[in-house]
Amino acid sequence: MGELMKSHFEGSKALITGGIGFIGSHLAERLAGLGAEVTLIDSLIPDYGGNLFNIEPFRHQVHVNVSDVRDTYSMRHLVQGQDYLFNLAGQTSHLDSMRNPEPDLEINCRAQLSILEACRACNPKIKIVFASTRQIYGRPQQLPVPETHPLNPVDVNGINKMAGEKYHLLYNDVHGVSAAVLRLTNTIGPRMRIKDARQTFVGVWIRQLLEGKPIEVWGGQQLRDFTDVDDAVDAFLLTAADPKTNGEVYNLGGSEVIDLGSLAKLLVAVNGSGEFAVKEFPAERHKIDIGDYYSDFSKIESELGWKPKRSLRETLEGTVKFYREHLAAYL
Amino acid sequence: MGELMKSHFEGSKALITGGIGFIGSHLAERLAGLGAEVTLIDSLIPDYGGNLFNIEPFRHQVHVNVSDVRDTYSMRHLVQGQDYLFNLAGQTSHLDSMRNPEPDLEINCRAQLSILEACRACNPKIKIVFASTRQIYGRPQQLPVPETHPLNPVDVNGINKMAGEKYHLLYNDVHGVSAAVLRLTNTIGPRMRIKDARQTFVGVWIRQLLEGKPIEVWGGQQLRDFTDVDDAVDAFLLTAADPKTNGEVYNLGGSEVIDLGSLAKLLVAVNGSGEFAVKEFPAERHKIDIGDYYSDFSKIESELGWKPKRSLRETLEGTVKFYREHLAAYL
Repeated sequence: MGELMKSHFEGSKALITGGIGFIGSHLAERLAGLGAEVTLIDSLIPDYGGNLFNIEPFRHQVHVNVSDVRDTYSMRHLVQGQDYLFNLAGQTSHLDSMRNPEPDLEINCRAQLSILEACRACNPKIKIVFASTRQIYGRPQQLPVPETHPLNPVDVNGINKMAGEKYHLLYNDVHGVSAAVLRLTNTIGPRMRIKDARQTFVGVWIRQLLEGKPIEVWGGQQLRDFTDVDDAVDAFLLTAADPKTNGEVYNLGGSEVIDLGSLAKLLVAVNGSGEFAVKEFPAERHKIDIGDYYSDFSKIESELGWKPKRSLRETLEGTVKFYREHLAAYL
Repeated sequence: MGELMKSHFEGSKALITGGIGFIGSHLAERLAGLGAEVTLIDSLIPDYGGNLFNIEPFRHQVHVNVSDVRDTYSMRHLVQGQDYLFNLAGQTSHLDSMRNPEPDLEINCRAQLSILEACRACNPKIKIVFASTRQIYGRPQQLPVPETHPLNPVDVNGINKMAGEKYHLLYNDVHGVSAAVLRLTNTIGPRMRIKDARQTFVGVWIRQLLEGKPIEVWGGQQLRDFTDVDDAVDAFLLTAADPKTNGEVYNLGGSEVIDLGSLAKLLVAVNGSGEFAVKEFPAERHKIDIGDYYSDFSKIESELGWKPKRSLRETLEGTVKFYREHLAAYL
């Protein structure tokens, strides 16, 4: 994949919203390595995923533009001249979206629409890859979940991400602004937020583990799949590079399906020590929990040749190692 | 139905957003006749459906509160003490939503969320009936279209109405604010907007007919169904009155399915004179046209006993008669 991607992205211009965040920073590093001219947009809102430590290793290889995707006029300027827009900025906390729906709507709906309007007005030839989420399916009616599964989101975040995704497909279909959608499942790896569960509960677990506290597992029976962040980056690049993805939606998925109790056990094993405690689901979270979930990612596998390359154990090993070295930068 | 409804709504308090508009004003008149204490909220934005002439016959029987549903604090006050909220306010023009998406998002998404937040905070025992639209299905994959059809809206308005609908279902499921959804197809009758096609193209046709101009039919082959506004009002009342509708979505439909060429012919026949001309679809509209559509309304029929009572001819006769008498009030 490396050579093909190099020939594709070398010398190209790529904009990444949420570029100082977890997935965005990995994508930035990879694109910069492939010879792309990369600009990162991030608002660095403390409750969200941006962390300047994420980009330290390659800070001099990218342009950093600290701004908010809700800022319509900045976006109009920044999309100009870009070949690619990796649109990853978002409010990710399900619980925050229920407690205070307005910022979620502003970021996940209104800003998306204004980014798309900016592209339509100022750079209609750009290719956009939008980071959507499996949250928009709600509680699965079948497993694994294919892209054709009905969309029944169970929280405000899921509804707004669904609208954000649909805007992208609409601008592709009606306005000819090329856009493709990836529906991410739990993505994990170095640089994910571990301060709290706003991005993924696995972050909190790793923090608990490294701070010598028992991992707090709610329920424990729920099935999940996990995508290694490097695998997710592969998917973004493959999708951006191939015009047949325009107007399409692809699930990402993981190399294995695991229940959360077993995941906690595996994490303890990878760490070499630690413990976990199974607790009851907090009521507020239980109401918006989706139960078991794992993806059918056969569409992206057959169309783009993507599949998860890393085992869950490898991913957890790399992640735990990273936070052992850099814990302080993420607290 | 009359007696049952009277016993249900007499002495109750009902709030109608969009209450000076087409469907809202009919609902208001009916509720007032049943002995409900009715408050109408309407912004009277000239491009939308509100028209004070609509409520002239019963103006003294209702409270009129001119305000905008985007106005969060007013809504917080107005929902208090109400038994029912008939939530009909919306931006309805598909084309406007494509040309200028922001107001559509503000009204059809953000305001809906803030209305629901107002109910959750200030009146969680209210029952809400939300006016959704068949537009959220997009281009039908099967006919007639049931409620389980995938949601693939083809314009910004459809996406935002979809989000608005999902918020209502979410607040029902998670926050216990009782809400039910009606997905309306083309609703027609007296008091609909005829100035332009922002509400329904049938309005424009009637205006053309009464002004002695040929009715301009785009395409003409498309199949559609039409709900008489009085039938739609029946559905709103039945849905509000029955708690088993909470969290449910129901299609409305029409007594017959007709292609637009035949509809134009029928309209000329009903009027006793006039002509129509079939023209090519304007490109801008064609891109967001949904092709053939008609509803499967068997769910509301079996669960609530609703079905269209008026024939299309009767509806057109009543409508043409109304605009012959009151044309000037709608230009």
